[in-house]
Amino acid sequence: MTRDVILLTPGPLTTRPETRRAMLRDWASRDAAFIALTAEMRERLLAVCHGRDSHVAVPLQGSGTFLVEAAITSLVPRNGKLLVLVNGSYGERMVDIARRLGRDVKALRWPENRPVEPDKVEQALASDAAITHVALVHCETTAGLLNPLKPVAEAVARQGRTLLLDAMSSFGALEIDLATTPIAAVLASSNKCLEGVPGLGFAIVERSVIASAKGVSSSLSLDLHDQWRGLESSGQWRFTPPVQVVAALVEALRALEQEGGPTARLRRYQDNFDVLAVGMRRLGFRLFLDEAVQAPIIATFHPLEGRAFDFERFYAALAARGFVIYPGKLTRAESFRVGCIGALDRRDFERLLTAIEAVLEEDLQSA
Amino acid sequence: MTRDVILLTPGPLTTRPETRRAMLRDWASRDAAFIALTAEMRERLLAVCHGRDSHVAVPLQGSGTFLVEAAITSLVPRNGKLLVLVNGSYGERMVDIARRLGRDVKALRWPENRPVEPDKVEQALASDAAITHVALVHCETTAGLLNPLKPVAEAVARQGRTLLLDAMSSFGALEIDLATTPIAAVLASSNKCLEGVPGLGFAIVERSVIASAKGVSSSLSLDLHDQWRGLESSGQWRFTPPVQVVAALVEALRALEQEGGPTARLRRYQDNFDVLAVGMRRLGFRLFLDEAVQAPIIATFHPLEGRAFDFERFYAALAARGFVIYPGKLTRAESFRVGCIGALDRRDFERLLTAIEAVLEEDLQSA
Repeated sequence: MTRDVILLTPGPLTTRPETRRAMLRDWASRDAAFIALTAEMRERLLAVCHGRDSHVAVPLQGSGTFLVEAAITSLVPRNGKLLVLVNGSYGERMVDIARRLGRDVKALRWPENRPVEPDKVEQALASDAAITHVALVHCETTAGLLNPLKPVAEAVARQGRTLLLDAMSSFGALEIDLATTPIAAVLASSNKCLEGVPGLGFAIVERSVIASAKGVSSSLSLDLHDQWRGLESSGQWRFTPPVQVVAALVEALRALEQEGGPTARLRRYQDNFDVLAVGMRRLGFRLFLDEAVQAPIIATFHPLEGRAFDFERFYAALAARGFVIYPGKLTRAESFRVGCIGALDRRDFERLLTAIEAVLEEDLQSA
Repeated sequence: MTRDVILLTPGPLTTRPETRRAMLRDWASRDAAFIALTAEMRERLLAVCHGRDSHVAVPLQGSGTFLVEAAITSLVPRNGKLLVLVNGSYGERMVDIARRLGRDVKALRWPENRPVEPDKVEQALASDAAITHVALVHCETTAGLLNPLKPVAEAVARQGRTLLLDAMSSFGALEIDLATTPIAAVLASSNKCLEGVPGLGFAIVERSVIASAKGVSSSLSLDLHDQWRGLESSGQWRFTPPVQVVAALVEALRALEQEGGPTARLRRYQDNFDVLAVGMRRLGFRLFLDEAVQAPIIATFHPLEGRAFDFERFYAALAARGFVIYPGKLTRAESFRVGCIGALDRRDFERLLTAIEAVLEEDLQSA
């Protein structure tokens, strides 16, 4: 087997060998063993966000974007109106999805380095009674920004609207507590902070919300209500599930519990981030975001100042040393990104810094 | 690792250990190595159906149903009209998908044991000029029936309409020759006759058809045109791909070539089917379909006559012996199904027959 590179990306990311080994067997998707595996996955997903008493977990085939679209088509009625809180590409993508689906949609925008402001959200809701649903991206991977979930959720609840949360890059590490935070649907995927492999996502939906979503979706494949009904009635997925991806996710969820849950995982990611941030500063790289809004999930750096910096060469030189970083996604500023999530700890980041230092040295010598 | 059972199901099915081992590494989805893997997959998929000169391969996350829906939303214009040729559940599902998407749809129906009749299709097209697209299920897994692809395709072409083919249970084994058969889009998935693991599907679409599909899809996730444009421009998937599932499919496609391509694979499946059919007849089980319309993909059997037959008990007793069979899906007749596809050969079916015989013996003794 080829030696694995270390993926410092927002996903797919570096997984544990045990997680990948869980994919070594075949499963009959309608057999009791796989039904039990699906049930364990759903239970564990609810436990991660304290949703057992109030919510259900609905897994779905596909990437995270499939889940966001599934939530919009299944939970926002055709005569509803969606307000999307946008401060990055993933917010913009929700606007695009809603428009294509023919839903009435409005965007409230902030710059990519500024968090969503709960008071502005509340004003927008107070001044537009047609808005039924609000969509927020918890951690905007565009820059790595953490939006203020709890104050936004409370503002939405005070105004009597329904909140959909894109928690792709936060679920499993950053706190999402459904017992104390009013969120109708949390959307996430297998391959980010949960450290599973990519291939499925899931919606954690309030019971009353999913129960009243019958017939809303214009998509059969992405219908979260029908998917939920199928799972509740027979324990089975409606359509062929990615059985090995499910097995890997269950293994990854067991590992999350063993590590100490989201709190312990966040601690490890924060440690990764701190090692990276301090080391990069020493090498002359500046973080794009202010500390106050930076989630320890993915770090966006400005290119080096005062010298030529060619991202493609930098990327290739690091890849040759076994580290895959990520291009920037900012609309206005040149940048690159380094993910802090995945089955990695501070030693991996110390090695990365050594590699970056060596690449910069070489580059100076060859210049 | 738990000893694997043998899956005699229409998918997910029994895969080769080498295919599963291809999932043991991590891949960065935007890195050159994975871009090359995706390109190899797309090339090999085209080669399977002789589509290199005329078609493109567009992979998509999800199960087969996601691909069928993607094709309808992406390729049938909103003012188009779809005629679905129905002789089983998968045809009915296409009608359901088109209706939900708000497309004008008409169904032409045959019983579950009768093939689609090309002359009736041609008459239907001649008498309804509004119909723009026709959808056919190549092998209807409901009963295991093979529909007459070439005559239907020729009738559709003579009438100047566009054919969408659901080839889920046929692609990789039953002949689909795009050089000689006019089909605008072939839809299939990774986990049936290709013997990959489940988690992705693909559309093989005529170049002119995909090029003119811009802006048609009301779904962002399922937009085949945008997915194709993304792949052509950067070699990358638009949204996080199931990287391990892709790696398994490439390994499975290499194995298909090594086996001798679809012709050799069909020979092995036919051999599996023949061993099964002869052995089951000896044990008193009758096939549901006439030989003339039976594909060697999945066999539907009537319950034993003249004695009590409890499918759940039969299923459980076989599962305890390591063989997972499949319940029937017929709307009108009690039945069960045994898949003949997957990484299995005649020895597996001989062992299955021995197990079935033992289960029937035991059952008689305990009765």
